[in-house]
Amino acid sequence: MTTVAAYAAPAAKAPLERTTIERRAVGESDVLIDIKFAGICHSDIHQAREGWGTAMFPMVPGHEIAGVVSEVGSAVTGFKVGDRVGVGCMVDSCRTCDNCLAGLQQYCTGGGPVWTYNAVGKDGERTYGGYAEKIVVDAGYVVRIPDGLALDVAAPLLCAGITTYSPLKHWNAGPGKKVAVVGLGGLGHMGVKIAHALGAEVTVLSQSLRKKDDGLRLGADDYRATSDPTTFEELKGTFDIILNTVSAPLDFAAYLSLLRTDGAMVNVGIPEEPVRILLSSFFGHRRSVSSSGIGGIPETQEMLDFCAEHGLGAEIELISADRINEAYDRVVSSDVRYRFVIDTATI
Amino acid sequence: MTTVAAYAAPAAKAPLERTTIERRAVGESDVLIDIKFAGICHSDIHQAREGWGTAMFPMVPGHEIAGVVSEVGSAVTGFKVGDRVGVGCMVDSCRTCDNCLAGLQQYCTGGGPVWTYNAVGKDGERTYGGYAEKIVVDAGYVVRIPDGLALDVAAPLLCAGITTYSPLKHWNAGPGKKVAVVGLGGLGHMGVKIAHALGAEVTVLSQSLRKKDDGLRLGADDYRATSDPTTFEELKGTFDIILNTVSAPLDFAAYLSLLRTDGAMVNVGIPEEPVRILLSSFFGHRRSVSSSGIGGIPETQEMLDFCAEHGLGAEIELISADRINEAYDRVVSSDVRYRFVIDTATI
Repeated sequence: MTTVAAYAAPAAKAPLERTTIERRAVGESDVLIDIKFAGICHSDIHQAREGWGTAMFPMVPGHEIAGVVSEVGSAVTGFKVGDRVGVGCMVDSCRTCDNCLAGLQQYCTGGGPVWTYNAVGKDGERTYGGYAEKIVVDAGYVVRIPDGLALDVAAPLLCAGITTYSPLKHWNAGPGKKVAVVGLGGLGHMGVKIAHALGAEVTVLSQSLRKKDDGLRLGADDYRATSDPTTFEELKGTFDIILNTVSAPLDFAAYLSLLRTDGAMVNVGIPEEPVRILLSSFFGHRRSVSSSGIGGIPETQEMLDFCAEHGLGAEIELISADRINEAYDRVVSSDVRYRFVIDTATI
Repeated sequence: MTTVAAYAAPAAKAPLERTTIERRAVGESDVLIDIKFAGICHSDIHQAREGWGTAMFPMVPGHEIAGVVSEVGSAVTGFKVGDRVGVGCMVDSCRTCDNCLAGLQQYCTGGGPVWTYNAVGKDGERTYGGYAEKIVVDAGYVVRIPDGLALDVAAPLLCAGITTYSPLKHWNAGPGKKVAVVGLGGLGHMGVKIAHALGAEVTVLSQSLRKKDDGLRLGADDYRATSDPTTFEELKGTFDIILNTVSAPLDFAAYLSLLRTDGAMVNVGIPEEPVRILLSSFFGHRRSVSSSGIGGIPETQEMLDFCAEHGLGAEIELISADRINEAYDRVVSSDVRYRFVIDTATI
């Protein structure tokens, strides 16, 4: 066991504060990681504030973890001390179900993944996330961060990157395809970068044109305000894929009308309240509504390699740990361009 | 112009009665068809009773038409007098949009298809459907009924057959795939037959076990009552495809839980009231909700050839035209096994 400094929410909706937690001893298949940077994901806030339901406290959030290996277990062959690595939303899964065997650990049907925090591991111990100095993770759930990617801008890729990369790949974003990204936040800005790098024609659909210059700079070909009704008239039947990164309720009928025949609207934000979709509204063109959650371990590695190859990191605002609570409030009010990343040396 | 006998609804919700209508002169690309049989589809009733909104009266319903060619226009090469043919839900479309060029005329984006009845053709004239002695249709919207299929059991294939065949093919029903068919009515019973013939493992999900023997005889491997809560527990995460033929509101969250990772729930019934789907309910396994409408002309021909090859016709109750109103009431109360077909010689 190792005692490490961390930032934790002591109770639901309480401010996060500095504390210490215990990390397990490094087992034979484990990797000990010195965490360098941890991104702040909106889902950290959903959980710390119990927006998704009852949570476990104290909670150390953080599932966008970038760091350096400082110790490896005796059976670990894939990593060595000094390797630059990342950990995302999962630290374990059943490893035996069809989905785990297919590398789709995020859809593990053998009890579901063990989430990086706000969960209980197979050893019966609580998991604690990345707002901490160190973490011990089974090597099978650790990915390599290529040399070309700085650790600070790589951290958000572990959630925001894979959450957008996976559905874009699954629904075949690429040359000749038109992709709309709804919302230009932490997820959306990575969706734009990745869809553009995949070769698709990208349109941002945002409430206003406030971030238009950013959107175009990040790789969007077009940028439209959803507050302008002509947007929905002019873009009717346009998109192959709508990647919805907004977890607030939307007028789904209006968005679905923007899809082409066989177009897919994929939701990656998880709303705190159920969203009502009117079925009759999308009859007619074999359009679909779906959702997608992060990605499997092999695809997370693929995403990091892709991002390194294309020079894609997150746009970040680096903060010290004492600014986490302020950052939470700013994320909730959409006042971040585009991801807060905690310099864990300041914990 | 030819005057032909027909059954028409003179006004919304009024009983259908015998009348006469005019069919246009046979144009150079037209086929004149002596209608032999016309199926009664639930959508005939939705429209005749204005369940889907304002309709055009008098209305001659009927888009499951089987008959014999009695005259062809000078430019028609694909059909000759005496050919056994069918006409489904569409009699024209723009022919120039991407979807029409791809054979997906049902999704025509150049103004949409011209429906077989309750519509206005490109010539500005009202269209009238199959509850009539004859019909004139452009040869491009006529399909061949293979010799192996009797015309009476073939008629319902023009809507019920293609409406189930198209999504089953699109979502890859076949060996190794598990398909649930919700509802064993006009559409559902063809869904069972076709999914079974495609090689999929088929389960019927019906309110009760009342039609279980029929379902198994038609090709289902399993038959479950949705009124039994254990059905939803036992079948959780089972199906690759749920083909929902029921247009009444369902508990979508419960049905979606029956899908495997990447499973698709495809709706082919069109409800009279919008159906509310709760988005958070299907997050987690990349499940999708979609809808599908009939099929294109090439696929309708493919479906007829497939049905002939596998000996699949509809299960029908043949009626004389004077029983149409009674049949409508029985369809609404689900009292039909499984399709009423009008012997048009009785008009």
